[in-house]
Amino acid sequence: MTSSILVLNGPNLNLLGKRQPEIYGHATLDDVAELCRTAAGDVAVDIKQSNHEGQLVDWIHEARESAQGIVINAGAYTHTSIAILDALNAFEGPVIEVHISNVHRRESFRHHSYISARADGVIVGLGINGYAAAVRHIRDLIPTD
Amino acid sequence: MTSSILVLNGPNLNLLGKRQPEIYGHATLDDVAELCRTAAGDVAVDIKQSNHEGQLVDWIHEARESAQGIVINAGAYTHTSIAILDALNAFEGPVIEVHISNVHRRESFRHHSYISARADGVIVGLGINGYAAAVRHIRDLIPTD
Amino acid sequence: MTSSILVLNGPNLNLLGKRQPEIYGHATLDDVAELCRTAAGDVAVDIKQSNHEGQLVDWIHEARESAQGIVINAGAYTHTSIAILDALNAFEGPVIEVHISNVHRRESFRHHSYISARADGVIVGLGINGYAAAVRHIRDLIPTD
Amino acid sequence: MTSSILVLNGPNLNLLGKRQPEIYGHATLDDVAELCRTAAGDVAVDIKQSNHEGQLVDWIHEARESAQGIVINAGAYTHTSIAILDALNAFEGPVIEVHISNVHRRESFRHHSYISARADGVIVGLGINGYAAAVRHIRDLIPTD
Amino acid sequence: MTSSILVLNGPNLNLLGKRQPEIYGHATLDDVAELCRTAAGDVAVDIKQSNHEGQLVDWIHEARESAQGIVINAGAYTHTSIAILDALNAFEGPVIEVHISNVHRRESFRHHSYISARADGVIVGLGINGYAAAVRHIRDLIPTD
Amino acid sequence: MTSSILVLNGPNLNLLGKRQPEIYGHATLDDVAELCRTAAGDVAVDIKQSNHEGQLVDWIHEARESAQGIVINAGAYTHTSIAILDALNAFEGPVIEVHISNVHRRESFRHHSYISARADGVIVGLGINGYAAAVRHIRDLIPTD
Amino acid sequence: MTSSILVLNGPNLNLLGKRQPEIYGHATLDDVAELCRTAAGDVAVDIKQSNHEGQLVDWIHEARESAQGIVINAGAYTHTSIAILDALNAFEGPVIEVHISNVHRRESFRHHSYISARADGVIVGLGINGYAAAVRHIRDLIPTD
Amino acid sequence: MTSSILVLNGPNLNLLGKRQPEIYGHATLDDVAELCRTAAGDVAVDIKQSNHEGQLVDWIHEARESAQGIVINAGAYTHTSIAILDALNAFEGPVIEVHISNVHRRESFRHHSYISARADGVIVGLGINGYAAAVRHIRDLIPTD
Amino acid sequence: MTSSILVLNGPNLNLLGKRQPEIYGHATLDDVAELCRTAAGDVAVDIKQSNHEGQLVDWIHEARESAQGIVINAGAYTHTSIAILDALNAFEGPVIEVHISNVHRRESFRHHSYISARADGVIVGLGINGYAAAVRHIRDLIPTD
Amino acid sequence: MTSSILVLNGPNLNLLGKRQPEIYGHATLDDVAELCRTAAGDVAVDIKQSNHEGQLVDWIHEARESAQGIVINAGAYTHTSIAILDALNAFEGPVIEVHISNVHRRESFRHHSYISARADGVIVGLGINGYAAAVRHIRDLIPTD
Amino acid sequence: MTSSILVLNGPNLNLLGKRQPEIYGHATLDDVAELCRTAAGDVAVDIKQSNHEGQLVDWIHEARESAQGIVINAGAYTHTSIAILDALNAFEGPVIEVHISNVHRRESFRHHSYISARADGVIVGLGINGYAAAVRHIRDLIPTD
Amino acid sequence: MTSSILVLNGPNLNLLGKRQPEIYGHATLDDVAELCRTAAGDVAVDIKQSNHEGQLVDWIHEARESAQGIVINAGAYTHTSIAILDALNAFEGPVIEVHISNVHRRESFRHHSYISARADGVIVGLGINGYAAAVRHIRDLIPTD
Repeated sequence: MTSSILVLNGPNLNLLGKRQPEIYGHATLDDVAELCRTAAGDVAVDIKQSNHEGQLVDWIHEARESAQGIVINAGAYTHTSIAILDALNAFEGPVIEVHISNVHRRESFRHHSYISARADGVIVGLGINGYAAAVRHIRDLIPTD
Repeated sequence: MTSSILVLNGPNLNLLGKRQPEIYGHATLDDVAELCRTAAGDVAVDIKQSNHEGQLVDWIHEARESAQGIVINAGAYTHTSIAILDALNAFEGPVIEVHISNVHRRESFRHHSYISARADGVIVGLGINGYAAAVRHIRDLIPTD
Repeated sequence: MTSSILVLNGPNLNLLGKRQPEIYGHATLDDVAELCRTAAGDVAVDIKQSNHEGQLVDWIHEARESAQGIVINAGAYTHTSIAILDALNAFEGPVIEVHISNVHRRESFRHHSYISARADGVIVGLGINGYAAAVRHIRDLIPTD
Repeated sequence: MTSSILVLNGPNLNLLGKRQPEIYGHATLDDVAELCRTAAGDVAVDIKQSNHEGQLVDWIHEARESAQGIVINAGAYTHTSIAILDALNAFEGPVIEVHISNVHRRESFRHHSYISARADGVIVGLGINGYAAAVRHIRDLIPTD
Repeated sequence: MTSSILVLNGPNLNLLGKRQPEIYGHATLDDVAELCRTAAGDVAVDIKQSNHEGQLVDWIHEARESAQGIVINAGAYTHTSIAILDALNAFEGPVIEVHISNVHRRESFRHHSYISARADGVIVGLGINGYAAAVRHIRDLIPTD
Repeated sequence: MTSSILVLNGPNLNLLGKRQPEIYGHATLDDVAELCRTAAGDVAVDIKQSNHEGQLVDWIHEARESAQGIVINAGAYTHTSIAILDALNAFEGPVIEVHISNVHRRESFRHHSYISARADGVIVGLGINGYAAAVRHIRDLIPTD
Repeated sequence: MTSSILVLNGPNLNLLGKRQPEIYGHATLDDVAELCRTAAGDVAVDIKQSNHEGQLVDWIHEARESAQGIVINAGAYTHTSIAILDALNAFEGPVIEVHISNVHRRESFRHHSYISARADGVIVGLGINGYAAAVRHIRDLIPTD
Repeated sequence: MTSSILVLNGPNLNLLGKRQPEIYGHATLDDVAELCRTAAGDVAVDIKQSNHEGQLVDWIHEARESAQGIVINAGAYTHTSIAILDALNAFEGPVIEVHISNVHRRESFRHHSYISARADGVIVGLGINGYAAAVRHIRDLIPTD
Repeated sequence: MTSSILVLNGPNLNLLGKRQPEIYGHATLDDVAELCRTAAGDVAVDIKQSNHEGQLVDWIHEARESAQGIVINAGAYTHTSIAILDALNAFEGPVIEVHISNVHRRESFRHHSYISARADGVIVGLGINGYAAAVRHIRDLIPTD
Repeated sequence: MTSSILVLNGPNLNLLGKRQPEIYGHATLDDVAELCRTAAGDVAVDIKQSNHEGQLVDWIHEARESAQGIVINAGAYTHTSIAILDALNAFEGPVIEVHISNVHRRESFRHHSYISARADGVIVGLGINGYAAAVRHIRDLIPTD
Repeated sequence: MTSSILVLNGPNLNLLGKRQPEIYGHATLDDVAELCRTAAGDVAVDIKQSNHEGQLVDWIHEARESAQGIVINAGAYTHTSIAILDALNAFEGPVIEVHISNVHRRESFRHHSYISARADGVIVGLGINGYAAAVRHIRDLIPTD
Repeated sequence: MTSSILVLNGPNLNLLGKRQPEIYGHATLDDVAELCRTAAGDVAVDIKQSNHEGQLVDWIHEARESAQGIVINAGAYTHTSIAILDALNAFEGPVIEVHISNVHRRESFRHHSYISARADGVIVGLGINGYAAAVRHIRDLIPTD
């Protein structure tokens, strides 16, 4: 298996760059993909997005075979999905949680994350640069041969 | 784009008229559709139902292009889905939340709605007539030319 | 007894149209009265307002003899008055609770209503049109002869 | 309609026997299926698993026509899904909730189940034998002719 | 000043015997008055009722001059009125709180009483006999000469 | 079976009149017994006290055969014993809960009673006269022949 | 309109100087009036008191036409009245909240004030001198011509 | 020591079959004993009941010497007894907690169990068949020689 | 009466030295007794243990006549027994509460003690030496003659 | 000792007039000092500021010897420092708590003050005039000779 | 390194013996020092006090090199300082927490200690003798050579 | 002013690399400094540490003049210091909050940060690499000329 990092995006992130730019900025998921690939160097990056909680769980299961690390911005499911937490618990590599905006400045129901208890690290509020920082961090943890 | 209102129905509403009539009455979703079309007059009505949270999110995204307003009865997702709230936050037209039964008379976990904070108005306990009132309210807000 | 609907308004609603129009709009209680009469058709409408909790209780008691249904916007007493709830519990006809603004977008102490547990339906955020929708709903429930 | 029991499994249970065996043991869903069939005797057993909340809701709806009872291990959705609760409320036969591990020894957010309020019985911590006990219990409740 | 006991009744108690007899019974306030007068023997009984919180406060103030003890059933104000508590704090004689129904079997917001912290004793659930027991208790505390 | 009322006393009430007279007064359990017998008239009174929760449960079970009503001052077990509540739930006659002092003026953990939800009535703060009022109330409910 | 300050007093403050002097001191409302007039200099002072919540709301409404500022000691309604808060929200001049005693040393239900969120300033525990300081503060804010 | 299972029953279970059959059914503790003995096969079953918390603690202590597993229905003590939890913590064999009714459908204070954190498994709502399932589960865990 | 200290031990402490030595150590209650006698010098020490809450209450009552001070390790009843608190409230000499382990490092329900509000001092986590320190402290408070 | 008032300022108040003028205004601590000296008349005023909690505690200790009263604006420590509360508890003269802005309109963690329970009076939202009012109040309490 | 015990005192303890003697007694920190030295025997005692949280942290850091055990009375910082908890977490020897008064009888915010979770033992309410008992306990744990 | 970033470290971080390496790793503050300087490129880095809350406040004030951005790991003060929050509120440049360990996996009192509401971004659990990522992020925000 060649080295690979899964960059997973949850609900509404398909609209990135198109909705509420005052919160999320103007970059799109394609920009995120390019940024992550640059940050990953010679490690492959697989970037996916779904609005379906079950689909996100499925992809995390597949990553058990195909990826060495996961960068996840679970969007709204961050705050409500124990199913995604459980899927991540069944993944053995490093996991970094990313949020584009600073969730701590928003509604109180966005202050709690089920995923943080499983993640190795959490990056919030750095805009889409948070993805790059997360990818770099995981890339440095993946053993090379 | 011709004027259109999306009438969105969440989980278990496909059973409307078939389950627990003492709570939800005997009318079906088809009856709701007919009622809404009558109320909408010459504005088109698109009525949809899904048990999948992600599907509801997808449809709200599509409505950004195809509808001027949304009437939403998110069923159980009313109380648990921040993803639907976020999707509605990315929709710019008027949103009216509808519940057939009076949720305030039922279990306490049905008293809180994530959607109400985004909705422009909320109608509960009027039975399926709540849909008609909501459609009428949105129709009156849509600019005609 | 001829058919009649009581439209009851609580504290500060005498200022409707005169205070905080960004929240409550520019229509006055007289506009509400006219709107309700139109909506009621040949059913009589009795519209009242008081800043006194006890007065509202008294009027609900009288309605036991004189009205077939009640539309109530209890204003601030919505959130603090068990006395009005108890009075409504002693009234046997349909009760619809109305709020002009979307209370769910305002301070958290406006999210709970003692009245909702007794009301048959609740309409919030439709502006003064909420009154009309409520009157229409009750009118349709009143048996004609 | 011949007698049938639906054995429904929620998110991540497809990994049974493959993830965290110190919590969930080494048996797989196939083992569960075999165990349930033995326990059911001449009653048919239909065993299903999905990571999608909406799919689980759909299957419960279908069971209204095709099954006399439901054994459900809703996994993480146990703690977050009112939609599944509502679907079960629309099912009229007996429902037994099963958890392989003792959820009361784990994180506090696993101590509450929306489903328990609807279930007739709950079995936790007996490993996969809990499924067998649940199937036996339902089988004994199904009228024979 | 001749000896006198004030028997004070709060909102909706004017309907006693006319509303919800399954909770409050069929006796009226007149029956209560007669019962109290019998129980009071040669001590005068002044029985009053108002739906107005402020009126109840006024009457408690007057009782500082005219009564040796107060029996109070503050109805719904029991649970919401600090003003009545403060008025009672300014009264120096014995105070007994009475509720006709057993409030502890009803909604949780009826379980807390602001008045109980000031009252010398509390009698609930004895029907209108609670008034008589309260009057007897106060009568025995009033010094005779 | 001749008519009989069980007057049950919980922990530390054997010290009545001997401990903390500023709270509980100077009367003893013997005084309570005499008072109850006077109040009961020709109905027998059986007065018992124990510091053992299990013993109190046993006595309530026996009362199913031997008594028509129960007056209970469960002392500290009022606030902690669901076992006594369950025993009372298995008793079919009237139950009146009594407390000598006004528990609502004391520590907040004394404000909640498990027993009140089962009791027909509750009398607090009348001193030992509360027992007499309770006995009289039950006596009047016992059918005579 | 000549300059005027409304000094509004809530329930039980008519007893000032007559009840619980260890908490409220010996000065009366007349003393407060004199103190305020001295402090106000050539600005008129209108001092009122009522035990009726609705009356206080009415007077605040009138002040929209007749006063430039309000000093309010709402007594017990401080902690329970959203109606008075809403009335003050409809008043545009400066509002200073006053309490004679230090409410933070008393029961915990006196620690929260609905009014403070609207008031410009709050003065507690300075005795009746708090009124004078409040009047002086408002007087200095009123434009002179 | 020959193999043995202790089946322990807490307060009010001596009334099984005699009280509230709509909740607990008509079977008695003797029926439970017979059911358990059948389920246990050649393993001895020792069935005991007490209304005394301390007695239940004593018996669990004795079981350290005389039993290989414990089936416990602690009745009301389930929700209030840390002493029984501590006694079970000092027992080394398997423990299964049983409740006849579905406690999750009843009062909220019955939703928490101190024992569940120690028990290996929990079975609720299967009626007295829950005992049999528990005994079978423990029997299968006891090593044979 | 000669000087005497009662050393009272609650549920499960009869197992001291036999259960969970990683928490409670290897010393037994006999070791505790010896340690206390050494610490007490010429003051008599009466050491008792019971698993029955009622028995502990009884013994505290007896100590009113026979002991000058009480050292109490109420075990699990520390966190649940208001009855023992009330009994100690009726004892007039010094009371020191002891816990062998550091309860603050264990489950949160062990962090609250009903007894601490009555005790003069509390010693936790010193192992059985805590008893000796408590006995020494009380011995120094007993007046000698 | 000549008469003296200590005016103590907590963290970040050294920036007064330089930061967030929309909240705190443009006046500086020097302006406050001048204002206080004018208000104090012939009583000396000692004005101090520190960002160190311990330094504030030290200065309060010194004030036991050197000041007759304290005006304190503890800034952020208002909400977090029990150490300052304890120091004030050891000071015997009058203490007035001052806040420049209306803390009740800001984040909820600014609504609680540890100091208010010790202070004699509290003045919030009057801008720096609050200091002057506080100094005047204390000056009037200092005995003159 | 010769054996040494650090006895650390937090804010306001420099006033020991000078403030609120009804709570803290008349002994001073010098008396505490002497008492500790006697209790320590041939082990050195280093007694320090500061009102500065940071200073206390510094001293705990130094103790990593210079002391075998710590006795700490952190005063008010007990309830608010995670910094001191973290410093103690970095210290490897035994730690005993001491409070002179019984904090459990005082304000509820004094009932929680951040330090207790790290301390090996806690002694409260024994007056300054608590220090001596703590020193003795640590002395006995220090290995001698 | 030349460009500069302040890297501020709170209590106990002077021990970095020396205490609890299983949580914090083996790198020291000097390693952090070197890492930050590398990340900052030609922007100056000023790295400071203090155990004193007031000192940290002082340094943030100074940074108003001397730095364009702040990276802050406030250690334990993260969870308790509103004073540091207020100081940061008075700083106008970007602020990134860093934690070496994943605080969300530790005690619940470490899950809340007062600083996050002010910070632009938060990085936790990346070890000391979090500092580098934070410095890089701020460096990219500083305007160059």
